[in-house]
Amino acid sequence: MKCLGTASSHMYWTHFLYNLLDQHVNQKRTCTRIQLSQSKSMRPDRNTYDGQSSSHSHHFFGEVKEREKEKSMKMKVMENGTISSQKSFVHVKNPYLDTMDEDILYHLDLGTKTHNLPEMFGDVKFVCVGGSPNRMKAFALFMHKELGPVEGGEDIEDICAGTDRYCMFKTGPVLCISHGMGVPSISIMLHELIKLLHHARCCDVTMIRMGTSGGIGIAPGSVVITDTAVDSFFKPQFEQVILDNVVTRSTELDKELAEELFNCSKKIPNFPALIGHTMCTYDFYEGQGRLDGALCSFSRENKLDYLTRAYKAGVRNIEMESTVFAAMCRLCGLKAAVVCVTLLDRLHGDQINLSHDVLAEYQQRPQLLISNFIKKKLGLCD
Amino acid sequence: MKCLGTASSHMYWTHFLYNLLDQHVNQKRTCTRIQLSQSKSMRPDRNTYDGQSSSHSHHFFGEVKEREKEKSMKMKVMENGTISSQKSFVHVKNPYLDTMDEDILYHLDLGTKTHNLPEMFGDVKFVCVGGSPNRMKAFALFMHKELGPVEGGEDIEDICAGTDRYCMFKTGPVLCISHGMGVPSISIMLHELIKLLHHARCCDVTMIRMGTSGGIGIAPGSVVITDTAVDSFFKPQFEQVILDNVVTRSTELDKELAEELFNCSKKIPNFPALIGHTMCTYDFYEGQGRLDGALCSFSRENKLDYLTRAYKAGVRNIEMESTVFAAMCRLCGLKAAVVCVTLLDRLHGDQINLSHDVLAEYQQRPQLLISNFIKKKLGLCD
Repeated sequence: MKCLGTASSHMYWTHFLYNLLDQHVNQKRTCTRIQLSQSKSMRPDRNTYDGQSSSHSHHFFGEVKEREKEKSMKMKVMENGTISSQKSFVHVKNPYLDTMDEDILYHLDLGTKTHNLPEMFGDVKFVCVGGSPNRMKAFALFMHKELGPVEGGEDIEDICAGTDRYCMFKTGPVLCISHGMGVPSISIMLHELIKLLHHARCCDVTMIRMGTSGGIGIAPGSVVITDTAVDSFFKPQFEQVILDNVVTRSTELDKELAEELFNCSKKIPNFPALIGHTMCTYDFYEGQGRLDGALCSFSRENKLDYLTRAYKAGVRNIEMESTVFAAMCRLCGLKAAVVCVTLLDRLHGDQINLSHDVLAEYQQRPQLLISNFIKKKLGLCD
Repeated sequence: MKCLGTASSHMYWTHFLYNLLDQHVNQKRTCTRIQLSQSKSMRPDRNTYDGQSSSHSHHFFGEVKEREKEKSMKMKVMENGTISSQKSFVHVKNPYLDTMDEDILYHLDLGTKTHNLPEMFGDVKFVCVGGSPNRMKAFALFMHKELGPVEGGEDIEDICAGTDRYCMFKTGPVLCISHGMGVPSISIMLHELIKLLHHARCCDVTMIRMGTSGGIGIAPGSVVITDTAVDSFFKPQFEQVILDNVVTRSTELDKELAEELFNCSKKIPNFPALIGHTMCTYDFYEGQGRLDGALCSFSRENKLDYLTRAYKAGVRNIEMESTVFAAMCRLCGLKAAVVCVTLLDRLHGDQINLSHDVLAEYQQRPQLLISNFIKKKLGLCD
């Protein structure tokens, strides 16, 4: 059993929210009205994070005890009825879940009886996921400093230290989790993460996957913000096997969120970014048309024909997790984005032979964009 | 660039082989003939590891310089023509591979120009793979002690320390690698591992996956040795997407190897083991009929019906990597086995709620069996 530093981080975050509210109230004195469209209250079926207000912590307004009451609860009015919006909770779609006496999140080494999940995670607003444990720790440390002032030292502990399947770090309202490589690996993590957010009664959560990818027809180092994840056949869908049935799910991502991220990228000097489709495959070699795997039964011409068709279908990069990420977030009412840097242009090669320094710089680009986006949503920068 | 402790481990292993040869020659003085069937020389299309002789290191007989010559080379005659067998090299099936000036094994942080792969890995005979990095390190340390005498201390270094995608440990002829969770994750590792074995000119390699799984109709803690890996529809096949075509591959495993492992298990006291089909899914929750995921659209009856049909089809456990492991090893001429312990009986539940001690003991069972098998093949025990 472990509850890692949650009390101090809660105090820090509550204190931070109070400060943010003060700023907000001061700003409001110069405004007559905040438009409803800004708070996105017209879309109760979708995540309705309202970055302009301080309403993104339900702890600030006090705990709501009853789950059903929460689901339909209106947000408190900030001042004179100028803001009114619904909170958006995570939708687990499993009638059995709330009947369980205990839920063991096995691959995260967390559970509802062994951990106080609302206390540990109730204030989470941004969940950032990526394949590599080291990269997710680096991002968490970066956010930890960016969100300063730092309490409790400069290091942060791995909340999932009891398992080596995934690692997890939390700083203020930002949760960072590694997911390994490929659809099955991220799928296990997402099931348990979404249950965690549900048990912790989180609301208005934005999910962002950051990663590396192979580009198609764009310069290495470009950052692709995904509008739609597509499968190997360029279709915007994810095929989920349920028992022995195949169910097709939509992989459309939140276009407003993608636009917001793209606008953020324009403010970073020399930052090559674009919005495009991202293709998700089950294999790095044969499935992505690489000529350098242990198995290769196609020609260079077959490969180039395939990648060219992908480009014409709007695909700008290829990775291995986006379809299931998009599908599950969409089903569970979580606003979601995918931001991946490209390490090479697949029209010109297969091998990743960047120098260590260039690779490190490229890998930091999604982190830089996402940290700027989060700081903007928290009112910490323009 | 790194070449980790390979010189000393080579010296140790060469010394070990000399000792083994001495034992072999002494044994031979009491024998008139070793049957050809024991050295499996009648199956030149399959891996032909000959555990009874000391012929399992080509370093012992000196390096063969030309790859094509190697592929058809007969093993040297040990004594008066009593043993004669073909070496079995790894079959990469990619005409482009040998035309490449350099091969960067990106996810292993190894390469043909930066590392002397024949020197580092040329003597590998057993490759053991498993999902968890910690578990693979524990197994490598265990084998390190079992193969004693230990040179270079009791610890062993992670050969892939430059990346956090996989970890890799080597002790004598045993290579241990983690592969993460799910088909795509193990597939990336297998492509690069098989190329590594090819570049290192390894021969007569046996591959064993060890892991945890959910059982069907058998007691938790049982060890299932897989005869055939099947997909979610109980078919002995793996569907590989190549570009945008779907290719079906056989997932049959080496039945003699499975029998050998099963016979080994009988010699371990109180060791519940069986041979059966293993089902491989792309998902831990919906795909395996769990009622405790973030999403669940089926009833308890649907679940039990599915698992019962699986049982009737011969499935005794469920995991997430065996089909692609079986298919790729088979295509590349690698003798392969899958040995997984079951953590629960899925007919009676979904959650893994074993105590830490019981879980740790269960997880050691595949390791114990595989270490006994390897020691037997090396002539270190009966």
